[in-house]
Parts: sequence; C-alpha cells; structure tokens
Amino acid sequence: MIDLYTFTTPNGRKPAILLEELEMPYTIHSVNIGKGEQFDPDFLAISPNNKIPAIVDRDNDLAVFESGAILIYLAEKGGKLLPTETGDRIRTIEWLMFQMASVGPMFGQLGHFRNAAPEPVPYAIDRYEKEALRLLGVMESQLAKTPYLAGDYSIADIATFPWVAAAKTSYMGLTLDEFPQVQRWIEALKARPAVQVGMDVLKPNFSSQFGTVAELVA
Amino acid sequence: MIDLYTFTTPNGRKPAILLEELEMPYTIHSVNIGKGEQFDPDFLAISPNNKIPAIVDRDNDLAVFESGAILIYLAEKGGKLLPTETGDRIRTIEWLMFQMASVGPMFGQLGHFRNAAPEPVPYAIDRYEKEALRLLGVMESQLAKTPYLAGDYSIADIATFPWVAAAKTSYMGLTLDEFPQVQRWIEALKARPAVQVGMDVLKPNFSSQFGTVAELVA
Repeated sequence: MIDLYTFTTPNGRKPAILLEELEMPYTIHSVNIGKGEQFDPDFLAISPNNKIPAIVDRDNDLAVFESGAILIYLAEKGGKLLPTETGDRIRTIEWLMFQMASVGPMFGQLGHFRNAAPEPVPYAIDRYEKEALRLLGVMESQLAKTPYLAGDYSIADIATFPWVAAAKTSYMGLTLDEFPQVQRWIEALKARPAVQVGMDVLKPNFSSQFGTVAELVA
Repeated sequence: MIDLYTFTTPNGRKPAILLEELEMPYTIHSVNIGKGEQFDPDFLAISPNNKIPAIVDRDNDLAVFESGAILIYLAEKGGKLLPTETGDRIRTIEWLMFQMASVGPMFGQLGHFRNAAPEPVPYAIDRYEKEALRLLGVMESQLAKTPYLAGDYSIADIATFPWVAAAKTSYMGLTLDEFPQVQRWIEALKARPAVQVGMDVLKPNFSSQFGTVAELVA
C-alpha cells in the first residue's frame, strides 16, 4: 500500500496518474499548500524540501520525495512504464529529466510571473514565455519522430502531461497552435482513464487553479 | 570509450567529475556555448534540447543528453556511486532530482538576473536569492544528518557540487556563512582528485566565468 501526500498541482498529479496506470493500491492524503500544510513537521519528515508530492511505501516503510524520484520508484516497483532495456530505459530517463529540469521549472516561473508576482515584470514574463515555447518546440520535434516522448508511453509522458496540459489555461497563457504533434500527444494522453483519474486527484474536495483534464485541454 | 560533449559550466562539469571517479576512458569535445555551437545540427542530433552536456557511448553507439540522465547512465555502466539496494538507490535519485529540479534551475535564474539580464529586475534577484538560500538550508539540514547528500558519496553530490561551489562567486553572490555543514561538504568534495580534474574540464583551452575549484571555494 502506498500513502500519497499530494495536492492539486501539476507535480501533485504525476504520481496519481502513475499509481492509476499501475493499478497499485494507494491512499491519498491532502497537503494543502494554500494553507501552508507542507511546512508541518510531520510532512517535513518525509519531504525534506517541504514540497508535494511525497509517498510512503508501507510495504517497506520507505518515504520518497521529488516527483521524478517517485515516478522511477513506483515504475520499478510495478514493473511498468520504465523499460529495462538499456537504450529504451535511458531514453525514458532523459525525457523525465527534461521535464524535471526544464519544463517544470520554466513553466512554473512563467506561472509565477504571470499570476503571483506582486508587481508586473514584463521582462520576466517574456523570458519565461519564450523559454516555454522553445521547450514545446523541442517536444514537437521529438513527437514528430516518436508517438510518445521516449518512444513508447512511459513515465516521461506522465511527468510532462500535467504541465503541458496547463499550457492553454489563462494561468500559463500559451498557445499550442504551432505544435500539432504536441496537441496529438495531449489527445492521446487525455484519452487514458488513468490520466483522467490522476488529473482529478483530490477533486471531490478541492478546486485547483489548473482545473480538470476536461477544462484544461478542451 | 565515452565521447563527452561539454563546456565550462556547472552542468558541463558533472559528467567530467563522474568519468574521473569511475576511471572510465573518455574524449572531451568542446561545445562553445558562447559561440552558439550547441545549435550545430551535428550536436542537435545527440542533444535534442540544444544543451550541454551530452555523451555518446561508442561501445554501443548510444547518445545520452540531460546531465542527470548521463550521471545515472554512467554510474550504472561503471557500477559505482549509484547504490543498487532499493532504499539507498532511491535516496540517491531523490537528491539527484532535487539538484536537477531545484538547485540547478533556481541558481541558474539567480545567475541570469544578477549578470545577464539586460535590465535590472530587483524583484527577480530577490526572489531567486531567497530561493537559493532556502535550498542551501535544505541541504544544511540533510548534511547535519548524513556525511553526503544521500548518505554515502554519490552522483547526487557530483550533480550538486559544481552549482554550490559557485555560490560564493560574484556571479552568484551568495554567502555560505549560515551553512557550516554545506561548507564542510564542499571541503570534502574539493579534496577529491576526480572533482578537481572534472571541475577543470577544458581549462587548458578555455576560461570560465565560474572559475576553477581553487578559485571557487578559496
């Protein structure tokens, strides 16, 4: 049994999607970052960077933080969505790292400067908008060659979808008109029941600024 | 034999340090990002995000991009610095992800706004300075419990050192006075011959804004 500590953000949805794909039993615990619950000492003990998501695997009492590490851990435990063959495996880890190091942080900075910064900073909005579009261009080139980011459907797609699905929301304010392959990939992902359930994590009790799959990619 | 495509930046130094630790033969190829060489079509073919570092493993003709993926690939190939036991292994991947998703991107934004932005943006400098110091605080708490980030010395330390070693340079402009454990960790890392050689990657031919180990952590 996996305990999932999460909230309604792109990073918070990644492990929920994967747990659904793996059909692995899990219990969701809400960590409301709007109320600062990520700073509770009990949560800090399992997530030393005070960030969601985190998990505790009750089978071996192992806590794991960082969404990218959680995806690798769960995929290896479940034996799916992270190939074992050397080439396919490193391709999956490459694109997972691309999401962790670039898509997540840069989309996140765009969201901050577009919505949360206490003063308008046009230079920063422009900087992160250009970088987000550049990253979508990198995905577009890759998805013109392969159906999914690393070839077959994998944790690299699961990591990236919740961020890119938010691109067209007013929160991100991006357009996908120039990225038909990315649009094709979004459609393929959102057709998956596990993605739909995972994107709705905590939905019965909480509303999210990122909305549901249906709202995000309509 | 590994072909390493790199330059004199924190990310560019990571695989050089690891290759030295593994005593694995490699050939260095300079990709001068000051001259835009990362946009050459030949380089794009092995690094689809137009970023250094990248490697090609000539033993199996496998190209790998994203520094975090390169570190996992080489550590698994060399059988060192990424434990195989489940708990130790995921701990190493957690702290590697912490570097990839937070330390690298946030220190990078601080460096941009402090040095490269064409106009001063005090809000952004303050934002990224606070976040960099917060991340150093997370490291400080962890390093009070364990000698290295993930317990024993690992690729998590190799990934993080080139960024944190630059903290006190004028480029980053941070102080480590409040982080004695981080200072202790820096001293331990810079005493390693492999770290010294890796940090000097391309040094005979190129000067770097980040300087050598000796300059960085003097």
